Amino acid sequence: MPVSPVKMADAIRVLSMDAVHKAKSGHQGMPMGMADVATVLWGKFLKFDAAKPDWADRDRFVLSAGHGSMLLYSLLHLTGFKAVTMQEIENFRQWGSLTPGHPEVHHTPGVETTTGPLGQGLATAVGMAMAEAHLAARFGKDVVDHRTWVIAGDGCLMEGVSHEAISLAGRLKLSKLTVLFDDNNTTIDGEATIAETGDQLARFKAAGWAVKAVDGHDHGKIAAALRWATRQDRPTLIACKTLISKGAGPKEGDPHSHGYTLFDDQIRDARLAMGWDAQPFTVPDDIAKAWKSIGRRGARARKAWEATVQASPLADDFTRAMKGQLPADAFKALDAHIAEAARTKPGNATRVHSGAALDQLIPTVVDMIGGSADLTGSNNTFVKGMKPFDAPDYAGRYVHYGVREFGMAAAMNGMALHGGVIPYSGTFLAFADYSRPAIRLGALMGAKVIHVMTHDSIGLGEDGPTHQPVEHVASLRAIPNLLVFRPADAVETAECWKIALEQAATPSVMCLSRQKVPGVRDTAAENLSARGAYELLAAEGGEAAVTIFASGTEVSVAVAARDILQGQGKPTRVVSTPCWELFERQDAAYRASVIGDAPVRVAVEAAVRMGWERFIGEDGKFVGMTGFGASAPYERLYKEFGITAEAVAAAAQA
Amino acid sequence: MPVSPVKMADAIRVLSMDAVHKAKSGHQGMPMGMADVATVLWGKFLKFDAAKPDWADRDRFVLSAGHGSMLLYSLLHLTGFKAVTMQEIENFRQWGSLTPGHPEVHHTPGVETTTGPLGQGLATAVGMAMAEAHLAARFGKDVVDHRTWVIAGDGCLMEGVSHEAISLAGRLKLSKLTVLFDDNNTTIDGEATIAETGDQLARFKAAGWAVKAVDGHDHGKIAAALRWATRQDRPTLIACKTLISKGAGPKEGDPHSHGYTLFDDQIRDARLAMGWDAQPFTVPDDIAKAWKSIGRRGARARKAWEATVQASPLADDFTRAMKGQLPADAFKALDAHIAEAARTKPGNATRVHSGAALDQLIPTVVDMIGGSADLTGSNNTFVKGMKPFDAPDYAGRYVHYGVREFGMAAAMNGMALHGGVIPYSGTFLAFADYSRPAIRLGALMGAKVIHVMTHDSIGLGEDGPTHQPVEHVASLRAIPNLLVFRPADAVETAECWKIALEQAATPSVMCLSRQKVPGVRDTAAENLSARGAYELLAAEGGEAAVTIFASGTEVSVAVAARDILQGQGKPTRVVSTPCWELFERQDAAYRASVIGDAPVRVAVEAAVRMGWERFIGEDGKFVGMTGFGASAPYERLYKEFGITAEAVAAAAQA
Repeated sequence: MPVSPVKMADAIRVLSMDAVHKAKSGHQGMPMGMADVATVLWGKFLKFDAAKPDWADRDRFVLSAGHGSMLLYSLLHLTGFKAVTMQEIENFRQWGSLTPGHPEVHHTPGVETTTGPLGQGLATAVGMAMAEAHLAARFGKDVVDHRTWVIAGDGCLMEGVSHEAISLAGRLKLSKLTVLFDDNNTTIDGEATIAETGDQLARFKAAGWAVKAVDGHDHGKIAAALRWATRQDRPTLIACKTLISKGAGPKEGDPHSHGYTLFDDQIRDARLAMGWDAQPFTVPDDIAKAWKSIGRRGARARKAWEATVQASPLADDFTRAMKGQLPADAFKALDAHIAEAARTKPGNATRVHSGAALDQLIPTVVDMIGGSADLTGSNNTFVKGMKPFDAPDYAGRYVHYGVREFGMAAAMNGMALHGGVIPYSGTFLAFADYSRPAIRLGALMGAKVIHVMTHDSIGLGEDGPTHQPVEHVASLRAIPNLLVFRPADAVETAECWKIALEQAATPSVMCLSRQKVPGVRDTAAENLSARGAYELLAAEGGEAAVTIFASGTEVSVAVAARDILQGQGKPTRVVSTPCWELFERQDAAYRASVIGDAPVRVAVEAAVRMGWERFIGEDGKFVGMTGFGASAPYERLYKEFGITAEAVAAAAQA
Repeated sequence: MPVSPVKMADAIRVLSMDAVHKAKSGHQGMPMGMADVATVLWGKFLKFDAAKPDWADRDRFVLSAGHGSMLLYSLLHLTGFKAVTMQEIENFRQWGSLTPGHPEVHHTPGVETTTGPLGQGLATAVGMAMAEAHLAARFGKDVVDHRTWVIAGDGCLMEGVSHEAISLAGRLKLSKLTVLFDDNNTTIDGEATIAETGDQLARFKAAGWAVKAVDGHDHGKIAAALRWATRQDRPTLIACKTLISKGAGPKEGDPHSHGYTLFDDQIRDARLAMGWDAQPFTVPDDIAKAWKSIGRRGARARKAWEATVQASPLADDFTRAMKGQLPADAFKALDAHIAEAARTKPGNATRVHSGAALDQLIPTVVDMIGGSADLTGSNNTFVKGMKPFDAPDYAGRYVHYGVREFGMAAAMNGMALHGGVIPYSGTFLAFADYSRPAIRLGALMGAKVIHVMTHDSIGLGEDGPTHQPVEHVASLRAIPNLLVFRPADAVETAECWKIALEQAATPSVMCLSRQKVPGVRDTAAENLSARGAYELLAAEGGEAAVTIFASGTEVSVAVAARDILQGQGKPTRVVSTPCWELFERQDAAYRASVIGDAPVRVAVEAAVRMGWERFIGEDGKFVGMTGFGASAPYERLYKEFGITAEAVAAAAQA
């Protein structure tokens, strides 16, 4: 006799309840409520093979409501993802386990993205669906043809990023993306209606989605809805009406059963109500077997796909791209460009230098997919000849993200996690704040994405203090596993692009100027930006009396200040610091040599001081900003805020 | 003969065109497109008196699409806001002018909020409408009865925060809020449809708004729509179909006429098309007069209102609240609580101490309006007896913001700008990233709001790295004009609340712990937190050999490390640093005395090192985090990441 699907869902419920109870923290409410939906999805629809978590053409499953992690861990364990043993389930939320509080990608096999910060799973999934669509266009449907499934809760849909994500997905007609909304009218503070009375179906429909509501505990109807979703020509929302903590007896449907709240006797009652008499952390054999066979369901398709790929003329390129390896000769044109720039020292805005570097990269690094949050012309992210990424064929490599910085950054994370593409995008640096939650999550996940952020200081000029970053560079430098580049000229900008593309598991931010600056670097033999900081100009005429440290557009200010000081007989060095994080990775001897032992140390950056002490010491002089900027032409601003060669020289003399 | 309203709108168009042309930057497209709508709104509906920009019961006008600032400056100049002279219009976007690139509140009379970062004007306006609703309930409709009008563009409505704002407004049925959507299908990168095909009317309707579309150049229909808006029982959206750069002859309707792009001859053609022959920066007398009379239209109502208020028994309290003054005896109960806490040194989580401080404050500081982004129980922001802020009477003081951190922070800014209330709210510190754009804008605007942010380190435990702030304290400390508090115990927490409430024009963030810590302060004679940093414990048995600096929950770690070191015969001081920004404001002598001259300096904070050099020097020892956290019970995390008294003592010895 086949095992009842309800019993299979109950296995998820009991494991979730028991794991949360043992950890004394976590959430059983959502896993219990969505167990039926997940059972139907994984049981009949999700394309996967538990034996091969990294099968490139698997469906992506994203638990956007990441606090319900026990739902995912239960599924991974039950379907036979080898690493996710019952021991791991028992160690839910413990040090070193594969079952942390929220799902973490690259930590637990089968977890596609790190979720927990609400709304971002959904926005990341949009990027996965974009990558799928693009790669399907590039490599053919034989090689790439899978869906992206998302489970999202009330919280995800209240977050602003959900709006950016669904309107982008709707615009792009990502028909292989389905959101399963856990429509249980429950949030932490009580019934969702205390804070939300919007009509989600109407809202998604307005964004261009096909929508449907379904009883989230009726397996037949769930299956019909999922089947319906696979036939639509646009993204699909299925609102699954569920009871939180379904199966938990008297606690079923109680908003307070969201998190760890079930007592021993309530768990006993719930087991009774489900007719579940197995011991904690054991699953009856017939149920376990049924789940395991689901885990093997995709094996045959996976093997057939492997054969197809092997036979494909594009196999090598596909495998290379999915491994995150760069094409051969990726940097040939860029290296020539760097050499030429070192020879001619062109003066221009670093955003223009970035555009010039992209001109060299886009034709050869075919995996790169660019875009901008509606600032294409300002960000210099577009390279002539790029076609828009759009329905129906999705072969284009330039995304019109719209004014959606956060959704854009999250989509980039999703593309990188999907693999096969290297996303970069553009906005103003001041709006790094808008995308910051996704920049951080990308750093945490090790997603190789590149955020081009232009207009990187008061050098932006007339747009004024709302648009002038003063604290953004510092605040990005504070994020672990993120390379923050602020290059000084054409050579450094191209070098930084190269470094960013060479990363395996680290995102980058390129801070670039609106205003023109002179070239400062005239050597190309070594990628000095890869050192993070380096001596650009040595002191002349004796031991260095002064070292001036600077980044980006202020390096040329430092060079001019050095001219003044050298003219006064003060031997002065200039150190350029395009990437602090890379400097931290150098050995102590190198770092000491760059810091040097000049008695006077000055730093100049058109930004706040925070963090500069590591170069200039606690008593070093800093020339920069102490508050917000102002609206005026930039030359005037630099003068009024005292960020000039004269001011740097004066600081050194003081 | 009365002046044609179209001519009056043309005055806005020509001023905008000329000012942008002279500044060689800025945007004429939106001011020209929305000139008709603005003329009808200001001409017939907006309640204001140009002679009294700070009339408390004026309507609030918010230009969410802040790049169209010349629309607002034109209106302010034309209606007779004295400070906004033609000279200021000519000095558009110049140093020191009252006409910066984007509108700045407290800089230009008549500007209600600083806009430019898209979407935030709308979200801020929601807060203004909330404040209005609350104060109307508190002081009566005789005293408070005005509307909030917003002009928003495609960009504003693409931003995620617009979703949070409109769903919150819809849920709260803020019927005195109207959004005028400049529906011109234009964004910087081209027609809006390259990135957005959503149905805005359907979307707002789904969020509970009444919606209507109108020809944005038909004055009669605009007036009818505005009248309709004033009669609805919910917030209203009017999609105004407009042509960008309306009136600019051949450039009319051209997406590329968004920003500074009109050449001399095109401006000449536009003038011809409009039949406008006045010189640049002059307005024909009849038109100028007609506009001036609009500026005086509200004078009579304003005077009547002043008489009403004076006669009201609530006049003093209303005036006090609107001036931002605290009630008499605001801190009587809190001071007693501090004294008691110093006596008993209660051990608990600082979030619990914060809740205890609020218990003292809420009954007396009646202007405070609290809330949480769906984490009420965790944030300890709710005080027993508070009623929910909700329709129909809005007298409640606790807002269920939903999972909308950014919308919440922006709404708080709007409430503070409106005046009469002191907003505070709660979320987890890790989600400061979500609300960061509004935290920053609040700092820039000097909005007195208080962000309660609990679970402020790896001390959060099992929820894991997505929820564990490691860089957030540093990144908030980088924002100018923001007080970042991280108190150590009950005394400091209450002291910090007092300081936050005493600010006139500075927002605060309270970083508070989930986990329990022992009390460390046993004196209450002086608010030592107001010093920013202070010596908590002096060295014993001789000159200090070691100084340990710490904030928040790590102060007790420092105290325990001191015990170890003192036990080893090393006289050791402990300095608590609850607020770096306030420490920076102390005089040099005080600062030097706190830093001290112990040969060994160590800092401990369960966060990244960035910025700590100002206390410990570039070579000082730092005990904290170097990367992201992990999921496990917090005691284990502190041990595994080496943030312990033993580690601090060892660092001091090394």
